[in-house]
Order: sequence, then C-alpha cells, then structure tokens
Amino acid sequence: MSIIDQITAGDVRATARLLRDIDDQVPTTPRILKQLYPHTGRAYIVGFTGSPGVGKSTLVDQLALRYRQDGLTVGILAVDPTSPFSGGAILGDRIRMQRHFLDPGVFIRSLATRGHFGGLTRSTNDMITVLDAMGKDVILVETVGVGQDEVEIANSAHSTVLVTVPGLGDEVQAIKAGIMEIGNIFVVNKADRQGSRKTVRELRSIIDLGLRRRQDNGWQPLIIETEATKSRGIEELYQAIQKHRQYLLSNDHGQLDEMLYKRARTQIVEALRDLALRTLLQRIESRGISLDSMVRQLMAREADPYSLVQEILAMELRQD
Amino acid sequence: MSIIDQITAGDVRATARLLRDIDDQVPTTPRILKQLYPHTGRAYIVGFTGSPGVGKSTLVDQLALRYRQDGLTVGILAVDPTSPFSGGAILGDRIRMQRHFLDPGVFIRSLATRGHFGGLTRSTNDMITVLDAMGKDVILVETVGVGQDEVEIANSAHSTVLVTVPGLGDEVQAIKAGIMEIGNIFVVNKADRQGSRKTVRELRSIIDLGLRRRQDNGWQPLIIETEATKSRGIEELYQAIQKHRQYLLSNDHGQLDEMLYKRARTQIVEALRDLALRTLLQRIESRGISLDSMVRQLMAREADPYSLVQEILAMELRQD
Repeated sequence: MSIIDQITAGDVRATARLLRDIDDQVPTTPRILKQLYPHTGRAYIVGFTGSPGVGKSTLVDQLALRYRQDGLTVGILAVDPTSPFSGGAILGDRIRMQRHFLDPGVFIRSLATRGHFGGLTRSTNDMITVLDAMGKDVILVETVGVGQDEVEIANSAHSTVLVTVPGLGDEVQAIKAGIMEIGNIFVVNKADRQGSRKTVRELRSIIDLGLRRRQDNGWQPLIIETEATKSRGIEELYQAIQKHRQYLLSNDHGQLDEMLYKRARTQIVEALRDLALRTLLQRIESRGISLDSMVRQLMAREADPYSLVQEILAMELRQD
Repeated sequence: MSIIDQITAGDVRATARLLRDIDDQVPTTPRILKQLYPHTGRAYIVGFTGSPGVGKSTLVDQLALRYRQDGLTVGILAVDPTSPFSGGAILGDRIRMQRHFLDPGVFIRSLATRGHFGGLTRSTNDMITVLDAMGKDVILVETVGVGQDEVEIANSAHSTVLVTVPGLGDEVQAIKAGIMEIGNIFVVNKADRQGSRKTVRELRSIIDLGLRRRQDNGWQPLIIETEATKSRGIEELYQAIQKHRQYLLSNDHGQLDEMLYKRARTQIVEALRDLALRTLLQRIESRGISLDSMVRQLMAREADPYSLVQEILAMELRQD
C-alpha cells in the first residue's frame, strides 16, 4: 500500500510520519504532497488566533467534541512556534490526545516549526493539505499571537476566530489597530472574569466602526462569550461558525471565491519562497560556497548581505 | 548631498523616507542599504517581545528617557504586524513622538509590514541597519507576540527582554515551552497587580530548570518587576541590560561571536529568501506568466502548488 493510499485511507501512523517529515523539511515531502493535492478541497478549515494564555487549546478541544456529536471527523493543528527549542509540542500533544483518547475521529498534531529557515506559513498549509487528504471533515488550526504568519495562516481558513480574554486592556487596542479585519468571529473567553461585558462592548464598537468605515454590507462579525473550561458558550461558538459557513458557501458577494483565491495565492507564494531558498542554498553549497563562509565575510564586514545575495542570484539564475 | 551622507549625518527626513521605502519594498532600497552597511556595527540593539497589552511601548519609552540621561541617542523600532490594514502604526508614531517631542536624540518609527509577501524579519533587519548607520547609540526594537518572526528578530538583538504581566496564566507556560531560551532578561510589568510575586517565582523556577537541564554556566537571566506607567523598575531594567551588555562584550565564552554569527546568518538567509522570491515573480511576469493565472489554475485544481513552483524553478534556474 503506497503512502498516498495509506493517508487517504486515514492511516494515523502514516499521516503522523508525513507531518513530522514536513516539520523537518525532508526533501521528499513535495513529491508526496503533489500526489495528495487532488484528494483535497473537501475539509472546512477554521483558524483560531490569540495570545498565549487566552485558552485557545481548551476552546478547540471542546469544539472538536461538539463536531464529533454531528458525526464529523476532526483534525487539530496547533502551530506553536514557541516550541522549537525544548520539544514542548510533543509533550503537549500527548496531554491533549488523552482527552480524545478513545476517539479515532480526532487527530491532533502540533507543528513545532523546527524548520531552521522559517517557512511557518508553508508548513502549516502543507499540513492542512495532509489532514484534508486524510479525509477530516473539519480542520481546526490554532496559531499563537498576531504576527505576519498568523495573518497569512488566516488566509488559509474558511472562518477565522479571534480569541481574547477580559482585562488584557491594550489587547483590544491591538485588535483595533488592524488584525480585527481578519476575524469573522470574536471570542471573549474566561468570560467569568471581571470586565467581560466591557470587553464585548469595546469589540462591538470597534467592529461597527470598521464596518462603517469600509461601508461593508457583508458579514457582520459575531462576538461570543465563553468559559471553555466549563464548556460554557461552546454551542454558541459552534452555531456562529455554522452561520459564517452558510454565509460563505452561499457566495452571494463572491466571498468564497475571494477566500479560495487568497488561499491559493498564499500556497504558491509560500511554496516558491521556501523552495527557492532551499534550492539556492543547496546549489551554492554544491559549488563549494558555504553559507558559513558568507556569514564570516559579513561578520568581518568584507561584504554586505545585499551584495552577497545579488551574487548568488547572478550565479544561479538563467541569463537571458 | 547624497542620501547616504544625509542618513549618516542623522537627517530625520531622509531616514524616515528610506524606512518607508523599505516597508513598501521599493526596488531601489537594496542599493542604498548596500552603501549604508559599512557605516553600521556601532549600535547596541535591545529587543523587547511580549503579547499585546503587556505594556512594551511604555517600558521602551521610559527606557529611552533613561538612555538620554547618559547622553546616548536612541532609535525605537516598533514592529507591528497588526497594522497593515488600517494604518494604525502611523497614528501610533504620532502619539508616541509627542513624549519625545523636543528631543532630536530620539527617533521612533513603526514598521507596519505592508509588504505583501511577508518579509518581516528582513524588513526589520534592514531598518536596524538604517538606524545604526544614522548613528543611534542604542536601538530598541519592539515585537508583538511569540511567533517565528520574533525568534528570528531576537537573533538580531544583543540583549532580548521578554515582557509579561501577572495573571496571564498560560503565558508562563508558553514561556516555559521554549521561547524562554531567547530571553536574557525577563520583565514582569504591571507589577502592582495581584500575583506579581507568584509570576516572578514561576519564571525563576522555569529558568533554573532550563539552566540545569542545559548545564549552562553562562548568563543567568535576570527578572525585573516594573510598573512602567509610574517609571517604577526602569532603573533596575536599565542596569540589567547594562549587566548583560558587559557580560556579552567580555566575550568570555564566545557569546558575542555566537550572537554576531546568528545575526549575520539571519541577514543573509532572509535577504536571499525575499529577493529570490521577488526576482522570480518578476521574471515569470516578464515572460507573460502571471501569478494570477497560476492561482486560477490551482483554484480549478488543474495544478498543485508544488508542481507550479518546480516549473518556475526549472524555467528560471541555470541548467548545469
């Protein structure tokens, strides 16, 4: 049985091995991903983003249980760039797996982003491709923080949920500053804490202001209060995602096409960025020019980074 | 007067213009950066990272005032990827500039990362190069969150300060999971809040555990409690940074070399990643193959991203 057959049949061990290879940037993975690609496009992808400590994992785990009640299979991908150093992702997986221990319908994996040269967005997209090909109906992707990578990962999701907690203060300001516009649904988790209503009100006025400014008659972002550790608000969050899904799939204003366009564009650009870098570094190494020697030239200020890079491109790109 | 002369003479308007061009990825910037590079290497670079809402900006502004008391000039770079949508960075700059309104010794700029294809790490490195060439003695770089970009930006700083607040709970867990190892100094800001001592104790035990595990006899990370809005703890933070600076510059265990090596390596890799991508996209466009047409092929599932990228590389890389 080929690896393609194994994965499309939902084999957990084969899938786990391929995901690890993607994380480790093993050179054979693009060949496999290429063959998996025709088997994708069925899964509904939901992104969750928010600072560490807001309770994303608990929320996602609870939501996975809700999808299981509908008989849907769930893939969970936790993008955790805090873990390249200590292997925290693997330990985290083990703890989380226990919650869904006897349920083969849930597959959880953390992306530790051991990849030495970034490539977080591409690795995440590749892993979504694998879980989609594996046949998962719903894929829940957790990302930490509000960096550029998160904005790009949001481009890969059908629905994006921004999670915050009461009392973070400037957090709302950060949302105001811009990331708001990627959120389809807002969650105020730990809603038992003081200030929850105030946070909801602030979010509401920021969202309304943004919609007015853009004269947007499309999707009105929903705000849900949850207390994930007590399963409170999970049903409401589930319904909110369903509502956004229906809005998107109706495609009245071409929202679905726009989302699929952005996603395809991100996939090409990120794959090109990473593969071009890796290929160029391999090529110069094979000519006996090591990255190490260039780094030492730079440290000695015998060269500048821009000239070094232009030299590499002049050497390796076709002249015509 | 050439732009190089203007910037190395500390001209604020010329510098601001170049920084905007870097943010907008104007194609002439590498040529200018190349000429600025020999004028760099003097500045001491301090990175500040932490979730939105922990008070990084106030902390950095206060610290800038402290450096000014020593007669040192200060550049502040706020990397704010939350702002590509609404132009929040520019408004933020105006508000912050008022605090240092009459002081030409402080230069503040936010990086909105409008760059459509990522490149946050490279843009940040380029902006550090400019402020260094401008003659700033100290460069304070603020980054949001704990993403891959932040880890890479930390590679560019001599000293890295991780900022948190009491009561974020899992925040400490995230630090535990790995990002801790990039922090030379830890700040618990808003230390008047309940739970501050507890947060300090937790950080201390995590740091000690990490040091023991790695049998590290080098730098012992310092933990400082601050209340930035009341200037409390700023002197202690300043002293902690000075202490780390002395440790680094003594170079007893080759720490400085290691830091400069990582930084040079990041500069080359990120410049190559970005320039290769941009050059390849331009080249295929000039052959009449648009990114748009490839995106539409992908959407129609007539192609997969991996094959498309391999075709581009086969077309544009030298055959030999």
